[in-house]
Amino acid sequence: MTAQEKLQLKLKSGRHIAVGLDTDIKKIPQHLLKEKEPVLKFNEIIIEYTYEYAASYKLNLAFYEKDGSRGLEQLQRTLELIPQDVLTIGDAKRGDIGNTSNMYAVSLFEHFKFDAVTLHPYMGFDSVEPFLQYEDKLSFMLALTSNPGSSDFEKMKLDNGQYLFQQVISKVKDWNSRGNCGIVFGATNEKELLENVDSFEGLTVLLPGVGAQGGSLEGVVKAFKKSQKEKFLVNVSRALIYRSQNEDFGKAAKQEIISLNNRVSEVWHKG
Amino acid sequence: MTAQEKLQLKLKSGRHIAVGLDTDIKKIPQHLLKEKEPVLKFNEIIIEYTYEYAASYKLNLAFYEKDGSRGLEQLQRTLELIPQDVLTIGDAKRGDIGNTSNMYAVSLFEHFKFDAVTLHPYMGFDSVEPFLQYEDKLSFMLALTSNPGSSDFEKMKLDNGQYLFQQVISKVKDWNSRGNCGIVFGATNEKELLENVDSFEGLTVLLPGVGAQGGSLEGVVKAFKKSQKEKFLVNVSRALIYRSQNEDFGKAAKQEIISLNNRVSEVWHKG
Repeated sequence: MTAQEKLQLKLKSGRHIAVGLDTDIKKIPQHLLKEKEPVLKFNEIIIEYTYEYAASYKLNLAFYEKDGSRGLEQLQRTLELIPQDVLTIGDAKRGDIGNTSNMYAVSLFEHFKFDAVTLHPYMGFDSVEPFLQYEDKLSFMLALTSNPGSSDFEKMKLDNGQYLFQQVISKVKDWNSRGNCGIVFGATNEKELLENVDSFEGLTVLLPGVGAQGGSLEGVVKAFKKSQKEKFLVNVSRALIYRSQNEDFGKAAKQEIISLNNRVSEVWHKG
Repeated sequence: MTAQEKLQLKLKSGRHIAVGLDTDIKKIPQHLLKEKEPVLKFNEIIIEYTYEYAASYKLNLAFYEKDGSRGLEQLQRTLELIPQDVLTIGDAKRGDIGNTSNMYAVSLFEHFKFDAVTLHPYMGFDSVEPFLQYEDKLSFMLALTSNPGSSDFEKMKLDNGQYLFQQVISKVKDWNSRGNCGIVFGATNEKELLENVDSFEGLTVLLPGVGAQGGSLEGVVKAFKKSQKEKFLVNVSRALIYRSQNEDFGKAAKQEIISLNNRVSEVWHKG
């Protein structure tokens, strides 16, 4: 099954939430620290309780790479715990010259076997093309991010009247001949989302920033509903996986993702 | 010794070459394939023959990450082979929201103990600040890269009359209050280098693109000489480490880096 097909099945069943497994040993419930591999145990329980309700798991490589080779081993073992029908996103934000991006594509798509990745667009077409050659995978290019620094460059105006992030969206649409391109659009930019959602034609959209960063879930769903597009994934990390610090943290995450799914459904089907 | 001090000593002794240890098992001499760890053996020999002449070793993480945890172990063991007085650059091109960039900074500066890193500027200040908090390290932000795709966004004109890459350089200078910022400027952009080198005040410049990508070493040195700046590092990877496919590949790399050092010196001291 291709990444696009996996995602389509989840979206059709009303699942739009990507669970961010950005697992930080300093933030997991204390009782897990007595486990041999606390991070892996935490991920295992979160997956066990949420996989039926999740559209996707997004794993940020930084949280694993920080422990070097041992961390990447835990990343790999976490990926093996995720059921095949749930989309896996390697939130890697890579981007390099073609020769090197090719190595990153081998790493993320062949070694770790992610279904999808996130990429920096700054270096242009040949820096992302090695990823796009994997037709059955999805590549999300950063357009407008959820952080304050998005105003430093992404929101700068070009002399053609467009903002830089709009230019990125426009180029990514040109690169989407295989239908395997997406963009990252921070949910904290509600105004820009409303103004630009009509231009996302054909692209799958990954929206971080709901939860700890303050973006509105309802705002996101309303924008896509207005534009009659359903190819969107809302990532929630900290506000979901750290919902409880007690033994019941798995159950708490399950209740939270069910509640998030319900909130999406209410806005989508209302009126 | 801080990264800045290490680099300063090398530059003062006329060493401006960064050796790119982008080691690809498909490109190393065939006789090494009988070794237990061919990539590590190759790196060991290249380092042994070149460390007296190199200003820096630049390791691109993609070439190691592609083998997952085993690859990162080889990266770590390669770093342990590099003498303490030679600057190590983790060519990682990272950049994420603050919370995550902090994890990458821990990975690159604390776990792997690189002296310097390369970063994507696209997401703005808070995406690079966790790295800049390490005062004794160097952070090179991508300004104008050496690849064809640099024309997709980096060379776009903003409505303030500047090109995007010039805006990046200007912002990086604002972020350089601790003196630990640098930029990446592709040597293939000789015209842009000549036009902009005077604006690099205070920044250390890493220039990839000489060798396999076609940039001119003499052109780079002339530009910096004209602007009376000596804080530049020219990276050479494939054209140096794969100079020979025979048993003498270490010696061939040594002759090549000596020749590169001489070519820098000739232009620098001429006329």
